[in-house]
Amino acid sequence: MLKSTNIKWEDSSIVRNDYEIRNGHRGVVVWFTGLSGSGKSTIAKAVLHKLFNDNKQVTLLDGDNIRHGLCGDLGFEEVDRSENIRRVGEVANLFYQTGMIVLCTFISPFIKDRQSVRQKFSEGSFCEVHIKCDINICKKRDPKGLYAKVAEGKISSFTGISSPYEEPTNPEILIMSDKFSVEICAEQVIKHLKLSGII
Amino acid sequence: MLKSTNIKWEDSSIVRNDYEIRNGHRGVVVWFTGLSGSGKSTIAKAVLHKLFNDNKQVTLLDGDNIRHGLCGDLGFEEVDRSENIRRVGEVANLFYQTGMIVLCTFISPFIKDRQSVRQKFSEGSFCEVHIKCDINICKKRDPKGLYAKVAEGKISSFTGISSPYEEPTNPEILIMSDKFSVEICAEQVIKHLKLSGII
Repeated sequence: MLKSTNIKWEDSSIVRNDYEIRNGHRGVVVWFTGLSGSGKSTIAKAVLHKLFNDNKQVTLLDGDNIRHGLCGDLGFEEVDRSENIRRVGEVANLFYQTGMIVLCTFISPFIKDRQSVRQKFSEGSFCEVHIKCDINICKKRDPKGLYAKVAEGKISSFTGISSPYEEPTNPEILIMSDKFSVEICAEQVIKHLKLSGII
Repeated sequence: MLKSTNIKWEDSSIVRNDYEIRNGHRGVVVWFTGLSGSGKSTIAKAVLHKLFNDNKQVTLLDGDNIRHGLCGDLGFEEVDRSENIRRVGEVANLFYQTGMIVLCTFISPFIKDRQSVRQKFSEGSFCEVHIKCDINICKKRDPKGLYAKVAEGKISSFTGISSPYEEPTNPEILIMSDKFSVEICAEQVIKHLKLSGII
């Protein structure tokens, strides 16, 4: 529901293209989706390091970090998850408009939510990365101890267990994080960015 | 109300200091507050141009632009205005964490809202700029035709008319935009950033 009225669009005068020329690469939103424990953050951080060290303008928006601040008012029901993803999409767009490579790591279990973020961007400016990992391996890794809490009945509405995860049907990148090392997975992303002319 | 639970803080590994070293300047949030028509956006854009051309990492978050996206679900009642400013503060912080100079132009009429944004930042990392302008001059300029609409009774709750504007009591920078040119006002901001060691 759009409630904001009497708004004139302000042209910031310095536009994305100006930033991209100066940065020496294009901006893009790289959206990592997958189960908790699938390796989204770990792989994205490896990508962040590689790109930063290669002097690219890059940032990481992380599900957990965002929920401490911008989305601290939201819970984990479907409507809150959707609003969470909507806001992140808007923030990703603000960073994208400064020509940055914006790495976003969010479980983002619903196709419609990911689709609505994608629709904010032009073809080639949104890159969906499915971090695919057997849920039993996610459970074993359990880096945040969440699967354990679920087993103890302490968390309701947990993706992959009591709440659905809708796999991407046609992601730009499919990464089998239960079969390859973090290094190889990160390189897969970098390679895609090179092949698609982003960097 | 903080509803997000079961969250672990993710260290992004590349921290603000890393960005700042590479950028060659410190990050800062420069918060322009003032009446509609006072010249916030115009002055901020002039600052944006100067800093961008001086090869600084800089961006502009604008009240109107943000309300098209991130805060498109919010209206103009006090509670919505507060939530608008809260979200912008969080987004400004995300940009700040990449070492950027973040120019924010928001009427932000309430001291408590500006204060709660300021509290997210350490001393010297938040710079409040009061763009002070006689409301009669704002009305004459009326760049968005809003004062005219107010006079026609088409807008309720308009800052400075039917809704209060609480002036900053101790801003880092006080700019009399009804007395000086845009060029001089913008230079006043740049000079402050230099004197305070940001750039």
